[in-house]
Amino acid sequence: MSDHVYKKIELVGSSPTSIEGAVSNALARAGQTIRNMRWFEVVETRGHIENGEVDHWQVTVKIGFTLDS
Amino acid sequence: MSDHVYKKIELVGSSPTSIEGAVSNALARAGQTIRNMRWFEVVETRGHIENGEVDHWQVTVKIGFTLDS
Amino acid sequence: MSDHVYKKIELVGSSPTSIEGAVSNALARAGQTIRNMRWFEVVETRGHIENGEVDHWQVTVKIGFTLDS
Amino acid sequence: MSDHVYKKIELVGSSPTSIEGAVSNALARAGQTIRNMRWFEVVETRGHIENGEVDHWQVTVKIGFTLDS
Amino acid sequence: MSDHVYKKIELVGSSPTSIEGAVSNALARAGQTIRNMRWFEVVETRGHIENGEVDHWQVTVKIGFTLDS
Amino acid sequence: MSDHVYKKIELVGSSPTSIEGAVSNALARAGQTIRNMRWFEVVETRGHIENGEVDHWQVTVKIGFTLDS
Amino acid sequence: MSDHVYKKIELVGSSPTSIEGAVSNALARAGQTIRNMRWFEVVETRGHIENGEVDHWQVTVKIGFTLDS
Amino acid sequence: MSDHVYKKIELVGSSPTSIEGAVSNALARAGQTIRNMRWFEVVETRGHIENGEVDHWQVTVKIGFTLDS
Amino acid sequence: MSDHVYKKIELVGSSPTSIEGAVSNALARAGQTIRNMRWFEVVETRGHIENGEVDHWQVTVKIGFTLDS
Amino acid sequence: MSDHVYKKIELVGSSPTSIEGAVSNALARAGQTIRNMRWFEVVETRGHIENGEVDHWQVTVKIGFTLDS
Amino acid sequence: MSDHVYKKIELVGSSPTSIEGAVSNALARAGQTIRNMRWFEVVETRGHIENGEVDHWQVTVKIGFTLDS
Amino acid sequence: MSDHVYKKIELVGSSPTSIEGAVSNALARAGQTIRNMRWFEVVETRGHIENGEVDHWQVTVKIGFTLDS
Repeated sequence: MSDHVYKKIELVGSSPTSIEGAVSNALARAGQTIRNMRWFEVVETRGHIENGEVDHWQVTVKIGFTLDS
Repeated sequence: MSDHVYKKIELVGSSPTSIEGAVSNALARAGQTIRNMRWFEVVETRGHIENGEVDHWQVTVKIGFTLDS
Repeated sequence: MSDHVYKKIELVGSSPTSIEGAVSNALARAGQTIRNMRWFEVVETRGHIENGEVDHWQVTVKIGFTLDS
Repeated sequence: MSDHVYKKIELVGSSPTSIEGAVSNALARAGQTIRNMRWFEVVETRGHIENGEVDHWQVTVKIGFTLDS
Repeated sequence: MSDHVYKKIELVGSSPTSIEGAVSNALARAGQTIRNMRWFEVVETRGHIENGEVDHWQVTVKIGFTLDS
Repeated sequence: MSDHVYKKIELVGSSPTSIEGAVSNALARAGQTIRNMRWFEVVETRGHIENGEVDHWQVTVKIGFTLDS
Repeated sequence: MSDHVYKKIELVGSSPTSIEGAVSNALARAGQTIRNMRWFEVVETRGHIENGEVDHWQVTVKIGFTLDS
Repeated sequence: MSDHVYKKIELVGSSPTSIEGAVSNALARAGQTIRNMRWFEVVETRGHIENGEVDHWQVTVKIGFTLDS
Repeated sequence: MSDHVYKKIELVGSSPTSIEGAVSNALARAGQTIRNMRWFEVVETRGHIENGEVDHWQVTVKIGFTLDS
Repeated sequence: MSDHVYKKIELVGSSPTSIEGAVSNALARAGQTIRNMRWFEVVETRGHIENGEVDHWQVTVKIGFTLDS
Repeated sequence: MSDHVYKKIELVGSSPTSIEGAVSNALARAGQTIRNMRWFEVVETRGHIENGEVDHWQVTVKIGFTLDS
Repeated sequence: MSDHVYKKIELVGSSPTSIEGAVSNALARAGQTIRNMRWFEVVETRGHIENGEVDHWQVTVKIGFTLDS
């Protein structure tokens, strides 16, 4: 594993329900074009408010994936 | 929307259950006196421990709302 | 309470389900050897990805506990 | 001056033109209700994009003002 | 205690003598209008110099207090 | 809007005149290949000096845009 | 000295009087079990409020000590 | 260029008009005694308020210049 | 040079030997698809341990390169 | 005051007694060669331990002073 | 692997030669009492100067290891 | 040692080979005019790329030295 090179990209996922859901949605979208995703890091957690309640969570994640050599 | 001015305040919400619950409780309390809340940002996540288990989550949020001009 | 001294240690808990679960697992393990745990602070939230989905959450927490004088 | 106490509040001002304009708009709005504003600190600079161009700047400032004793 | 919501405000207190004095002065002023102050966090410590000596300390604190529900 | 996923990229724009100009140049270049840019965040502001004067401003921005699902 | 290895631990000391007192109390407690303490770093300064006044200061310090080889 | 050593100094420039003007004023003053200034980094942006309006901008910059070997 | 726009990407390079080697490996991989790389910034340095020794270094770098206009 | 330029330097002062004393000692030393010191900012607070007690405090301060134009 | 709990400790290793050597020395010392070390994170890099040259490097690392359940 | 005052300056050293070499070059240049250098802190590590490879490392260090009283 010591000769791998990884790339990290930064996405913002959304979910009306939870932080975990927002991360999962970001990963699902990233997985459409990226193979070999390995880990994620939560960078920022925020959200949109409507009528005094959380309308949706917005979670910024960095996703690391293996670059094929 | 470009001529709005927003104010941000900082609250700490609590919940025995989850981070999301603590944020919702903070918003519910803020909504008693503030109209036009627009977004929140999670600043800090911590909690109180009783008998070796999470007793309640304490989540610090900044809440942004529109100032009527 | 003003004459207490607390120690803080740093653990990483894991959970396939949620951030809250990862924190609870860290506390459960710490409670095997530490008495008088008082609070925790979430320091970092990340996770491992398998097959394009979250395999498990990894949450770093600092745990504060009372040192018996 | 050594016995003054100041309060700091956090506002987000907007302007279609410049960072300076966004700060001025935030101060103008704050000045409707606050006397004795003394200084500001720029905390964050961001903006909204429409049709590939900056639609308006959004600048977060902390504003310090004297509390009458 | 798990259902409390707290608000945090940011003040700058001054004292010719010490950091502790500057914090106390900020608390004294805040206490004129705020009930139920619970904790403070020192955010920044600086000061003004006159004739090569400290003229007064300026300490920025965040003060947390309980919002009555 | 709650089901969108956004990607953030990091660019450095330059301008001989102003911070605002450097951001606009970065957006103009990004707009050649990216649709649906939504917001930007100023990350760093610096510049190059020639003959004791600002030769050009270099502003690092993160640009967020919608990923088509 | 170049072949020493040091360990750093994190404690929170308390004092009703001063920041310096809180640090001293943390060191006194640590000294019951740790030999060869060499330096400390103040990480966070906060405190508890009772009846509108500082009840006790809470200062988080990292303490470095030599590990016997 | 690989054998150069640079020094960085920290100045605060002021301008009644703009961030750019405050940086230029800092560079102009530095240029009276420093040769071979190469780049600057904006560290902090704040300002003084008079009568509810920006009186002058205060911008802290680090300036890098070549040390003659 | 004042009209260039640069893009920054984030990679993690690995090496069993050194921090410098990990950076070089990241650059070598990036150079397979990116022309005109100009500078890098070390963001994070960590590594994997096997049998009590460093198995490989993992260094996160941001790489800046010129976007052809 | 809007046309002043200030320089900031970074010193570490020491005192066996207190944080305030360490800052005062740094200012006293700086005042031997610098005129027109205006303000200071505490950057870091640490100290040396001898025999389990604080031997001396070491406080890093940035000192701002007016550059004569 | 999802049910592991890790502990992180903070050490400072020294070496007259290199950053890598200082990290290795820290790991060697930690390995005398800790099994199952998994990763490290470089937190701070500094060093001591004698006669104008680097006498030894001092590198602060956090070391993560598996807690046996 | 408790009555010493130290000054810290910030330099950027370069080396085609290594981080350690860049720091040594910075110290060598500083030693031409500064006596009594005591320690250094690595603040930033970056470098210049030519033809897809590291051309030279650029390491920013703060250097602390004793001010003669």
